[in-house]
Amino acid sequence: MPYVNIRITREGATAEQKRELIAGVTDLLQRTLGKNPATTVVTIDEVELENWGIGGLPVLDYRAQATGKAKP
Amino acid sequence: MPYVNIRITREGATAEQKRELIAGVTDLLQRTLGKNPATTVVTIDEVELENWGIGGLPVLDYRAQATGKAKP
Amino acid sequence: MPYVNIRITREGATAEQKRELIAGVTDLLQRTLGKNPATTVVTIDEVELENWGIGGLPVLDYRAQATGKAKP
Amino acid sequence: MPYVNIRITREGATAEQKRELIAGVTDLLQRTLGKNPATTVVTIDEVELENWGIGGLPVLDYRAQATGKAKP
Amino acid sequence: MPYVNIRITREGATAEQKRELIAGVTDLLQRTLGKNPATTVVTIDEVELENWGIGGLPVLDYRAQATGKAKP
Amino acid sequence: MPYVNIRITREGATAEQKRELIAGVTDLLQRTLGKNPATTVVTIDEVELENWGIGGLPVLDYRAQATGKAKP
Repeated sequence: MPYVNIRITREGATAEQKRELIAGVTDLLQRTLGKNPATTVVTIDEVELENWGIGGLPVLDYRAQATGKAKP
Repeated sequence: MPYVNIRITREGATAEQKRELIAGVTDLLQRTLGKNPATTVVTIDEVELENWGIGGLPVLDYRAQATGKAKP
Repeated sequence: MPYVNIRITREGATAEQKRELIAGVTDLLQRTLGKNPATTVVTIDEVELENWGIGGLPVLDYRAQATGKAKP
Repeated sequence: MPYVNIRITREGATAEQKRELIAGVTDLLQRTLGKNPATTVVTIDEVELENWGIGGLPVLDYRAQATGKAKP
Repeated sequence: MPYVNIRITREGATAEQKRELIAGVTDLLQRTLGKNPATTVVTIDEVELENWGIGGLPVLDYRAQATGKAKP
Repeated sequence: MPYVNIRITREGATAEQKRELIAGVTDLLQRTLGKNPATTVVTIDEVELENWGIGGLPVLDYRAQATGKAKP
């Protein structure tokens, strides 16, 4: 019966990748806490880049500043 | 002053249906807990089908598997 | 398969009142959008008064200021 | 490490305004609680007007009813 | 930079199990979408049983009704 | 009419600090987007340290590993 909400920036996640996230999280909850997949709900929110901030900056500005380092 | 968030799959809910949800939830909170409608906030999130998972599958796959049973 | 999150201030809502909220919201979603109760998840978050703000004030300050008017 | 979610109605907030919200909230958390901007995440959700309810009505109906008063 | 919120009923999940959930979800996001663990935030909400509803009932009533079937 | 949810680790934030967060966010939304404080709702969730993960670790482990660097 768990409810999992995954929030990521909207950057072209494919249907297949979302399928993997849904399956992976559901499996993780079953293995770790014995939760029943039949009532495990997973939702994925894809948030526009200009609507996501880190380090006090919108993501694109943050990345421009941090060019070269690991993709946040 | 309650805040209610209703998350449903994006499957063509009409403006009228959303109006009913907003009115119904606000009325329920007033009847049940005496909450003031004037500061009761209701938001409805419509989530793309491929972004909603149940039973470890994206909804469309889940329904294909469960064809014939009750619409989840 | 809807997921509904109801956030209220922690002010002594009883188990029976929560039962009513859960039943009422589930029924509303079934009547309005034909959603299947079996996979409708409702969660209720009770938030401490000092953790809830409206009008730029914590609730208790807001109510003290608005004494006499409708309970928000 | 705070996570802040700002939900507003979708009414044309500009990239610059969102930049201000992200910077302002991150700065507020640093000043008030000493939180590290580098791991402060802010997301902004813009919700369609017909998906946002207050006073038991969708926003546009609420505003029509309250014409002339302050923009909610 | 993903933000993941896992909501489960409060039923004694141990610190070790939560550690597994945090590591598992972070790893899943890195493998699936190449997300950077350093800015992947995971929060776990443990919700009281009487505050969680499914099938129109609080969990304990739901389970009593469904005694014998798979633990939701 | 905005709804803002601030999630922080439970580490002794005082009533006064929460008052500052509520006032600060409400003021920011009014200055930036002209939002009406009277219907701006702010909630603060304080999450147990073992329920908050970053870098694939619960916060306390993360901090132990990162001893000496800036407080996340």
